[in-house]
Order: sequence, then structure tokens, then C-alpha cells
Amino acid sequence: QGILERLDAGEIVIGDGGFVFALEKRGYVKAGPWTPEATVEHPEAVRQLHREFLRAGSNVLQTFTFYASEDKLENRGNYVAEKISCHKVNEAACDIAREVANEGDALVAGGVSQTPSYLSCKDKTEVKAVFQKQLEVFMKKNVDFLIAEYFEHVEEAVWAVEVLKESGKPVAATMCIGPEGDMHGVPPGQCAVQLVKAGASIVGVNCHFDPETSIETVRLMKEGLQAAKLKAHLMCQPLAFHTPDCGKQGFIDLPEFPFGLEPRIATRWDIQKYARKAYDLGIRFIGGCCGFEPYHIRAIAEELAPERGFLPEASEKHGSWGDNLSMHTKPWVRARARKEYWENLKPASGRPYCPCMSKPDGWGVTKGAKELMQQKEATTEQQLKELFQKKK
Amino acid sequence: QGILERLDAGEIVIGDGGFVFALEKRGYVKAGPWTPEATVEHPEAVRQLHREFLRAGSNVLQTFTFYASEDKLENRGNYVAEKISCHKVNEAACDIAREVANEGDALVAGGVSQTPSYLSCKDKTEVKAVFQKQLEVFMKKNVDFLIAEYFEHVEEAVWAVEVLKESGKPVAATMCIGPEGDMHGVPPGQCAVQLVKAGASIVGVNCHFDPETSIETVRLMKEGLQAAKLKAHLMCQPLAFHTPDCGKQGFIDLPEFPFGLEPRIATRWDIQKYARKAYDLGIRFIGGCCGFEPYHIRAIAEELAPERGFLPEASEKHGSWGDNLSMHTKPWVRARARKEYWENLKPASGRPYCPCMSKPDGWGVTKGAKELMQQKEATTEQQLKELFQKKK
Amino acid sequence: QGILERLDAGEIVIGDGGFVFALEKRGYVKAGPWTPEATVEHPEAVRQLHREFLRAGSNVLQTFTFYASEDKLENRGNYVAEKISCHKVNEAACDIAREVANEGDALVAGGVSQTPSYLSCKDKTEVKAVFQKQLEVFMKKNVDFLIAEYFEHVEEAVWAVEVLKESGKPVAATMCIGPEGDMHGVPPGQCAVQLVKAGASIVGVNCHFDPETSIETVRLMKEGLQAAKLKAHLMCQPLAFHTPDCGKQGFIDLPEFPFGLEPRIATRWDIQKYARKAYDLGIRFIGGCCGFEPYHIRAIAEELAPERGFLPEASEKHGSWGDNLSMHTKPWVRARARKEYWENLKPASGRPYCPCMSKPDGWGVTKGAKELMQQKEATTEQQLKELFQKKK
Amino acid sequence: QGILERLDAGEIVIGDGGFVFALEKRGYVKAGPWTPEATVEHPEAVRQLHREFLRAGSNVLQTFTFYASEDKLENRGNYVAEKISCHKVNEAACDIAREVANEGDALVAGGVSQTPSYLSCKDKTEVKAVFQKQLEVFMKKNVDFLIAEYFEHVEEAVWAVEVLKESGKPVAATMCIGPEGDMHGVPPGQCAVQLVKAGASIVGVNCHFDPETSIETVRLMKEGLQAAKLKAHLMCQPLAFHTPDCGKQGFIDLPEFPFGLEPRIATRWDIQKYARKAYDLGIRFIGGCCGFEPYHIRAIAEELAPERGFLPEASEKHGSWGDNLSMHTKPWVRARARKEYWENLKPASGRPYCPCMSKPDGWGVTKGAKELMQQKEATTEQQLKELFQKKK
Repeated sequence: QGILERLDAGEIVIGDGGFVFALEKRGYVKAGPWTPEATVEHPEAVRQLHREFLRAGSNVLQTFTFYASEDKLENRGNYVAEKISCHKVNEAACDIAREVANEGDALVAGGVSQTPSYLSCKDKTEVKAVFQKQLEVFMKKNVDFLIAEYFEHVEEAVWAVEVLKESGKPVAATMCIGPEGDMHGVPPGQCAVQLVKAGASIVGVNCHFDPETSIETVRLMKEGLQAAKLKAHLMCQPLAFHTPDCGKQGFIDLPEFPFGLEPRIATRWDIQKYARKAYDLGIRFIGGCCGFEPYHIRAIAEELAPERGFLPEASEKHGSWGDNLSMHTKPWVRARARKEYWENLKPASGRPYCPCMSKPDGWGVTKGAKELMQQKEATTEQQLKELFQKKK
Repeated sequence: QGILERLDAGEIVIGDGGFVFALEKRGYVKAGPWTPEATVEHPEAVRQLHREFLRAGSNVLQTFTFYASEDKLENRGNYVAEKISCHKVNEAACDIAREVANEGDALVAGGVSQTPSYLSCKDKTEVKAVFQKQLEVFMKKNVDFLIAEYFEHVEEAVWAVEVLKESGKPVAATMCIGPEGDMHGVPPGQCAVQLVKAGASIVGVNCHFDPETSIETVRLMKEGLQAAKLKAHLMCQPLAFHTPDCGKQGFIDLPEFPFGLEPRIATRWDIQKYARKAYDLGIRFIGGCCGFEPYHIRAIAEELAPERGFLPEASEKHGSWGDNLSMHTKPWVRARARKEYWENLKPASGRPYCPCMSKPDGWGVTKGAKELMQQKEATTEQQLKELFQKKK
Repeated sequence: QGILERLDAGEIVIGDGGFVFALEKRGYVKAGPWTPEATVEHPEAVRQLHREFLRAGSNVLQTFTFYASEDKLENRGNYVAEKISCHKVNEAACDIAREVANEGDALVAGGVSQTPSYLSCKDKTEVKAVFQKQLEVFMKKNVDFLIAEYFEHVEEAVWAVEVLKESGKPVAATMCIGPEGDMHGVPPGQCAVQLVKAGASIVGVNCHFDPETSIETVRLMKEGLQAAKLKAHLMCQPLAFHTPDCGKQGFIDLPEFPFGLEPRIATRWDIQKYARKAYDLGIRFIGGCCGFEPYHIRAIAEELAPERGFLPEASEKHGSWGDNLSMHTKPWVRARARKEYWENLKPASGRPYCPCMSKPDGWGVTKGAKELMQQKEATTEQQLKELFQKKK
Repeated sequence: QGILERLDAGEIVIGDGGFVFALEKRGYVKAGPWTPEATVEHPEAVRQLHREFLRAGSNVLQTFTFYASEDKLENRGNYVAEKISCHKVNEAACDIAREVANEGDALVAGGVSQTPSYLSCKDKTEVKAVFQKQLEVFMKKNVDFLIAEYFEHVEEAVWAVEVLKESGKPVAATMCIGPEGDMHGVPPGQCAVQLVKAGASIVGVNCHFDPETSIETVRLMKEGLQAAKLKAHLMCQPLAFHTPDCGKQGFIDLPEFPFGLEPRIATRWDIQKYARKAYDLGIRFIGGCCGFEPYHIRAIAEELAPERGFLPEASEKHGSWGDNLSMHTKPWVRARARKEYWENLKPASGRPYCPCMSKPDGWGVTKGAKELMQQKEATTEQQLKELFQKKK
């Protein structure tokens, strides 16, 4: 059954977690470029992560094609582009996802995301051509549906949806925005309306904000669609980091991004609460993005097991709400084998010299780097190339 | 070259990280029992984790045989023992470790750890028989050396060392204790002396406490050995969790154990500081235990790269001290591409409703579980079996 | 010069601080009733506090008549009403304030605040009669102007202003509300409009919220007045407690109220920031409420000394921005004698087992007191009398 | 009855709180010099604070003669010395304390503390002469007993005790040290022994550390005395600030000293716990130092009311354990009228951007003040005078 059949039938569809963060920690992705050349370089590592998500309950395996557009690979992953073609990276990603999907009950979704071309102010035709190139691989490899994800600008997201829609396959679209809307100030409700009008059957958010904030954003999207009398399925794939202190651009601007986010990592119980809240709002495509490890996805599947009627495979190695501690030799550890315990735990950070919240960086904020601050944001391909040359 | 040749030559030997915690999050180990049946059930997952540690710089791959003694598998992993023999679990662990070790420059170490038999007050002969049984597999599979690790009682650790020593292979011994010493109050210095006298060539600590506390414990061991005019190599494999608030039994007693430890997870920079401190104290076998993911091991290898003269393979996907952010489009993110930035960052938890430290649980402490608290700690096999029966 | 002459001339008028909290800590006011019988029982203590505020820079001494309406004294201060008449309490308050005002350049303001009569749903005439009674004393004692303060309901505040306005004296009106508006949901902008229309020449907020939140509320009031093309002077007398976690009813609902607020107390530097922000918004009557001690008022006067051209008397015992530390024997303490140091200090709580924020209590929130929670809020005089009888 | 009669009879003697900090906030003492010229300049303010402590339960009123030695007044309070003689300051302090003591059941204690003369390495004779000069005033004014307090060096404390002892009046001696001992490394136990041998009948600690740490130090003193088979009464007058992060020199070195300590202020409930612990250790002279306000002293008197058989006068304005909230109109506030509530409250700081603990400053630690750090600590009178001249 396809993604729309499932959602139309009222099924809960569980997404997967965050590949770039998980594989960065495993040693296969470089923070900064965040490009997925690992599909070619280390397919076994990508395959294993897919497998873990499948086992944890994912019904959708996204091809590991984040930032795999030709312009991005060339731009950020310069060191890679010389060796590995964009084409190969995307093809390998599809093959691996399909191989693992066949081991269980999962769909394969081909994904595109925001492009340097758009940020460099290239025109609609040029930007669409970038998406078109990735889409060709997805069609050749016959993915089950398509996701346009991680867009900060609704205009570009709409262009992506338009390209993907031509394929005839179902299209989902998620933006990496918060309640304040996209980078041009378009509020979430309007973003959702534009995406649905462009052809998306599923809309929502991914990345950049924590579960609570992301659900709030989807709520605003839902209201926008209702006001416009449009229908679409709702989707949510937030960070597994607590980010109550984020500004408009989300966790990128937090001083801890990307190498000091550990104290913000959500527990499995945080994720169960998220899954419940998402479900209660009517979201039926529930997954995660950066920071989501397999056990976070399992937490979604376990929380919604009563509604779905079954547990994921990986639950054979997990007791519900700490149930598996009931055999511990120490009675005070056994006493933790209760839902009430974990639900109410306020976990300590073990870091008494650290604060609880940070002020996001941004123009005029960063200290100790005045020189850099005086530069404008370098976003054009040209500027980045120059920066890269200078660095070499 | 064997472990002792390396250490005698003054080389730094990098250990690996924590299998049970990493594989629990990946869906292959059950918290509570913490047994390693995955070596038989899901060898590909165990193999992949070994590979990641190797790639991150580990010079020693420990067989995934934690809690794989026959009495433990029977006791805690009851549900497993019926299907998978202790023998098979240990053999598979050796095979997988060797397979991956052959992919690089790593030694295979067979490991034994504390047993239910000792806790149930069985006698020396019976306890030694348990170690003997695991040792037979290690000898058959010809591991490179042996580690007796995770002992709370020096008496049992000494018995383990005595058994392992008979094999003729080098023996390392680490206890899961803090500066207060073992559960009978034997101080770290004395523990070290007893272990060396029993035949251990390498001594130190693993698990239960954070890097800072663990280094302090090894310092006390070092002083004990010096006072006794004994020589041994020093080893440290701590938690990758911040635990300044631990009591004598370490992180087990923290209210967050084992499902709410996320805010305590060490950053890579914390681990670099640990590696430097460990090195400065004269520790030359430096690794990690629960919570250590591949990127933590890489952090050790990167911190000590100047001393070792080379970077680990996984550093091809990592810039030193955030160096890889220097190409980011936002100048304030580029401004994070500096050692000084990450060294001084005090990472926020994003959890303003949570405290920084917890009071450890323990006798008379746990609230909301009075009934359980009135029971004595059930540690004998018999008691646990009864508990298990009642539960079924 | 009267209050309006000063404000009309663009002068900054500095209010005083919080009497009930300061005198509670000094032993003269009972938390709970919060009634000011100390004016009769211990005039020397009230006089001394007035003096300290005068010395710290206050231009306005408010008569200590908070909760000194007859119905309140009878209701909450039952134990008092038998001995000391409402009339005497108010008269003594006026005499003490005037005595101290004469020692410097300060005005005396007579104050009324919200009444149990209103909360018990008595009608307009009855409620106004309560204010009238206090006003008679203020007129007899010839205070310089009048303040209607600490109103949660704009309706009652308007009634108070109407009564006070009849006196012919200038009237200021402040509500204890936050940005969400009054208890009936009237937004701050509308509250301000109604108060000015009723005759208030000065409007703003006092109590219940921290400086930052209070300034935000006054900003909304200012916008409301601008939209309605009304003119009034702005006034702000917030808490000297940090309350970012407050709900609609402010600090009363915080679990720490009123006996555990210490970690929230503002530093003098926090108050200097507040004074600057208040000034920048156009607020010219700047003072404090609960938690404001004399040194907090001095901080306002010192921050605005450049604009006012002079320092308060108490600054003879205070160096600007820690200047007085420049003679310390330790160089690292001398290094604190700088504005930059104190401006950027993030003061630690010394409480690693405590959180940074709390969830406010309220209907359905309080734990461990289910029985009480099932009762409705008892607000009528009758109900409280019954409660009181039962207690006796 | 004198101090020794009371203590010998097993009575609990309650000390008073901190004058310099309380009067600094009230506007009469200058932080930095911390000198008590207010006894002459503003006797009414000093008198009022004495009265509040008396009313709160103090049995001992200490003359406000802290840092009132001639060398100190000249050195730090330079601006004062020209106008007000040391003699006058000390005389006025005695008169005020006696006046208030006569209003209740309190003793007057004359106090001396560490001197610049000692720090400038003057010899025993010279240092003793400084104490002698203050003692003359105390004898003339006939105080009830004498306290040598706030000594960092046991040698100087011994000299002070020797001088005071000659008067024939009972002598108490407290040092401002923690468990690590005095600045020359003399451990607390030995300090206590030396003080008792010099003639002190009461020994203990004051200032510099929080209640918990101070009790621990007194415990070490008690053990020292027991080991030496000496007898003395124990005394404790700690800070009312939480300082778990202090180094050897206590709160002076904390970055928050002295103008950012607010988040560390102890609640009344913290102080009740302190009073109980102090009592349980056998301490019978229980008071406070910097940060102790009248309500903190009342908390001691209330906690120990069962043992003493009576409440202090100020308890007429205070309900035990929040009892006075039982009449609040909101049920969730009424629910706070319970001992269990306040005992278990973990009060939030309202400061999510601040840490819980700080690293103490000190040699090599302070940042951003390198220049100053390169200077040696300037402690001689001469150096400070030069510094002062340069500043002018």
C-alpha cells in the first residue's frame, strides 16, 4: 500500500530519524558540508542505520540524499565532487534504502532539499533543474513517493513540489521553520496553503526546532489549511534536541550547534510525549530529524502501539516504560520500572557550571569574532568558492 | 605487536567504547539484563559497531562478551538462555571482533566481568569455574589478551585475574569503582596492588563514573602502586556521562539511570580534555565505557594525534576543533571554527525545568516506592528466580 | 512641585520599593494577610524603611496603607481588627510618610488597592465606599497625590480612580497585570485607556511580574493610549524577582511564593538594566514593588544619574558599578571594579539540585493537595470567615 | 546570666545576623571598605537593625565594630578616618548595642577581627596593640563578653584571644575558615585547640562559607578538641548564601562577590535545616554572618522553639512552616501551608541563562584582567596607600 492509501485509511505512518547527525557520530558524515557521499563510500554503514530505523518501527525509509543536489555537492562537498558524482550518490542511496525496505514493511521516499542555487538567487528554471536532476534518479529507481524537505523559503519549496509533482508520485513537503514562519516572514499557515496548492498531499515541518515547537508550527499550518478550506495530511519530523531558546532560524544559531548539543538530547520519554501530542493534533506521519536515533523512533512506535495494535521489532529488546528494570538486583532500581517514574523524571545535566538556556547567535550577537561579523553572509557560490580557495 | 610490547614501548593504546549502551539505542541489547546475545542474533549490528570504533581509532577491540558468563545469561537473560548457549554467544563475539580487527591495526581482547555467582556468595572454586568457562572460548579463538573488567569487589577481580593469568596471555584488570574504593571499602590504591600481585600487567578503572572521577581513581591506584613499589601500566575506560553527583556505586544509583542520562552525555570536547588529562597522569591505555560512541573514541585519537603522529581514519570526516565549520554560509557559525570556542563553551541543556545535579538513590532514599524499599536487596540467584517467576 | 509638574517638565520621578516584603523579613508584617498594622504597632520600623528609600533616591513616599481598607483588615487581618482601627492604621501611615518626606525632597502619595468587597461581588457603591473611607484620611492628612495600585480587575481600578479623582488631587493608577491583561481578559492597552478616561494622569503596572515583563506590559499600555489618542504619564513598579515562568496571575502562582523566592531576587545590576529600559520606553515614574529593597531603588537613581544630574544620598556608600572594589587587597577582586564585569556576570545560584524555572500552580496543577483542589476558590467574605472559624 | 552560665546550663544561645551586608543594602555601609562608621553617622539605622535581630530571637547583640580597628579605618576607610575617630565608632557601637539589649533579654558582645597590621607582617606587639585599643572601649562600656571573629590566620586569632582574655571577660573565637583550614594550612581541629589553649571558652567559625560547609568545619574542630581532651562550647555563624563551589578562601573569591550573590541567598527553610543540624552536632551558640537578615535569625529561633520552649517576639508575624497561608483565597496557595511543602521545595532561580555553580577566582584564574593579575597581592599599608593616591 502506498503512502496515501495508508494515510487516507487513517493509519499512523512512522518516519525515520536523522541520518546526517547519526552518521556524523559514527564517523561517516562530515559536519559542515553534511553531504551523503557515504552511500558510495560506506554503504554498509548507511544500510545498517536504515535497518535500525526499520527495526525500530519506521514505515518510511528516506533515501539518504540530503544535500545531494549537484550544486550542493560541488559547493560544500568540494573535496568529494571530484571523486564521486552526484548521480552515483543518489543512485546508491536509492538502492540501499530499497534493499532494506524489502526486509520489512516500509516505503522508500526520495528526498530533495534546499539548494545553494536558490540562495545564490538563481532563477526558477535553474533551481528547478537542480531538483529535476535528482528526480530523474528517483524515477529510474522507482521510489514509492517523494519528499521535499528542509526548506527555509516557501518559494523554493513550492518550486520543488512543482517539479516532484510532475512525476505523478505522491509528494510530501516539510519546511524547517518555526511558528514565526519562513525566512521571508511567510507564516506557517500560508506556507502550508501554498504547498498544498502546488501539489503536496502531505505538509508539515522537519528539523531546526524541538518537538514541542514543531508541533506548534504544524498546528498553525493546520489552522491555515482549515481557513483556506484545503485538505492535506500532516507530517512532523522535528529535532531530538530541546531548543526552547531558539530564534527564528532554529538550532543552527544556538551556540552549541553542532558539536555541543549533547545536553539537549531528548530522552525516549520526551519522544513518547511528542508522539502523543502529535497524534492528538491529528498528525499521522510522525518521525524525526537530526538527533533522532533508532531508539527515539522506537519510542514513537511504542507510544502509539495501542492505536496501531502492534509493537516494532526492536521492542523485543525494550520494556515499556522501563519495565525491563523490574529484575534489577537493587530495589531502588527496580522501583524505576514504572511509567509514572519516567514520565515525571526531571533529568539532571550533571553540569552545574553550565546554564539551561543560551542566547542564539546572529548578526550583532557573536562575540570574539568581530572580524568575521563584519563580513556579510557569504551565500553565493562564487563567494564560497573564493573562501574555499583562500583556505586552501 | 602485542599489548604489552606496545605499552612497554611507550605507545598510546586507544580502547573502544561502550557496547551495551550503544547497541541498546540501536535496538539490539535490552537494558536491565544488558546481555550480549546480539553476537548471535544480529552479528551485522555488532560488527558495524566494532568497525566504527576501529575507524575512530581503537587499537583494541573487546569481544562483546559483557555479562556473557553462563550464570549471568541464565540469571538475567533467562529469556535468552533457553535459545542461545553461553558458548555460542562467546564464540560469535570472538569471531566478529577478530574479523573487524583484521581490517585494521587492532588487537582482540577477551573480557570477563563480575558474576552473579560471586554476589550469591558462591565460593572461590565455583566463581573461578565461571571465568574458566569463558576463558576456554577465548583460548580456542586465540584472542590477543584478556581483560577482567567491571568488578565492584576486588576479591572477585583477583580471582578473575588468577584464572585469566593461567592462560599465559597478558591480563588487564579494571574495576568499576570510584575514589572511595570497592564495595567492601578497599581503597583504590590497595585494589591496584592486589590486582598486580595477582598477575595483572595493566590496571585501572572502567564504567560507573565520569572521566574526571575515574582519572582521580586511577591517580589513587598509581599512588598505591608507587607506595608498594610495584609497576603496572595504567588504564582508564570511564563513562561518557557527567556524574559529579554520584555516590559510591556510581551512575547506577542516579535517578536518571539508565533511561534519562541524555543531558549528561559528554561532548567530544569533554572527551578531548579527558584524553589529555589521562595522558598527563601517565595513563597509556585510554578508552571508554557506557556512553562512549565512536565519535568519543575519535576525540581521544584526535587529542593525542600530536603524540601519536597520526589521525584515525574517521578524521577524514571531522575537522579538528570544529575546523570544518569554516565554510559555513553564516559568519557566526564560521566563527565557531576555533579551538578556543569549543574549549570554553558551557553547553546549555535546553531544560530550564530540570536541575543540574541529582541525589543518588539508595537505601532509605527512594521515594514513592516504599514497599520495594522494605525488601532487602535481592541478589541471590534463588531470590531473583523467585522474583522472575512471580512476574511471569 | 507636585507630581504632575515634575512629570510634565520631563523629570524622572523615582518611586519607592516594596514595604510588605521588606517588613516581613524585618519581622513586622505577616505574610498571608500582608496588612500594615505596623504603622501603629511599630512606627519606628516603618519610618526607618521610608528613610532608607528616601536616602536611596525615592521622590515619592507611598503611605504604608496597602491592604489597609476596612474590609481587608477585618477579613484577613482579623486578629488585628479587634485591636487597631482601620482609621488609625491609615492615619499613622500618613504621618510617618510625611515626617520622612519632610527630611528630603519627596512627595507623599496615598494609596488604595483591590478590596475583598469587589472580589465578593459587592456592588459599585459598596466598593467605592471602601475607597472613600481611606480617601478621607488621605485628604485630612493632605497627601500630595493618590495612587490606585495592585488591581487585577480594571473595573475595580476604574471605580477606585473615580473615587480618588473627586478629591481634586492628581491620580496615578497601576494594575498588577502582565501582557495577557486583567483577570477578565481585558488587554493592557484597553486597561490603560479606561483608567485614563476615568481620570488617571499616570498609568502603568505594579507587582506580580518581573521588570522585563512589566515593561512589556507598559509598552502595550502605551500603544493602547496612542491608538486611542490619549495622553498620560507612564509608571512602572515591578517585582525585584525574576519571573520568566509566570502565568497570568504572576508570582502568586509560582511554587516559591512567598517563602522561597530568594534565588529569584534581582541584583542591583539587573535593576540598572530595568531602569534604562524603562526610561528608553518613555516611562518617567520608575519604582519598584515586592522585593525592591533600598539598594534596588538606589540602582535606579544611579543608572539615571546622568539624565538627572545628581546621585542619591545613599550613593556616598556605593561606588558606581563596583568602583569601590578598586581598593581590595586581592587583585582578582579589584578586577571586579568595572562596569563590564557586573554587566555581563551570569550569577550562579549555588543550588545545583534546583531547577531554573517552575511550573506555576493553579487549577488542576497543584499536587499533593487534592482535597484542597476540589474546593472552589473561596473568595467571598462569608466563605473566608467560615474557613477562619473552622481553623480556630 | 552571662554567656557561659547560659551555655554551661545547656541553653541554646542565638546569635545575630550580618551587619555589613544588611546595612550595605540599606545604604549605610560601603562594600569594599565594609567599615562601621554608621554607628556615628546613622545610629538610628544601626539601632533599628539591632532591634530587628533582638525581636527575631537574638540573645547576643554584637557591637557593630567589624573592621573598626584603628589601622583598618585608616587604611580602607581613609575617607572616614579624617572625620571620625576609631574611638568614637567603637563607643557609639557599644552604646547602641547596650540600648537595644536593654529592651530585651540579650547580652552585648564586643568584637574584634583580623587587622591590616597582621597582613602587613607587623610583629605580635604591634598587632596586639591594635586589639588592645578596641578592648579599652569595650571595658569602659562594660560589654558582657568578647568575640574574636573573622580571622583567616589562627596565629592572629590566638593573639587576639590572648589580648581579650586579659580583660577577665569570657572570650569566644571564630575563624572564617572552611574544612581545609586556615590560610597557612592549619587544619580546623588544630585551630580550635590553639584557640582554647589561648583562653577561648567558645570556639567555632563565622562568615566565608555556607551553613553546611561551616557545620562541617565545626565538626572538625570538635573532633580536634576531643582528640586533645579539651573542652569548649561550639559556635557557628555562617553565611546565608549557598556556596558549594567555594575554594579555600570562601565566598570572597566567587565571581558573584559581593554584588551578585542574590541567587545564593538562603531561604528561611534552609536556615531551619541549618539550625537543626547545628544543634544535632552539639553547637549551642548558633547565629549567622553576612547575608543573615532578621528573618533568618527568626528561622533559627523557630526551629529550636521546641527545645527552648518559646518563640521569639517576631513570630507573632510569622506562621510556622507557612501556616499563615492557610487563609489565602486561592486553594493552591493554601496548599503551601504545610511543613512538607516548604521542606521539599527546590526553589527555581528564574534565571535560565545562568549556571548553578561558579569557578572561584584566584591567582591565574581571573580572565579579562591580565594586567591586574600580574601584580602581586597588595597587602601592606604602604602599597594600599600608594594605590589609593594613584586612584585619586
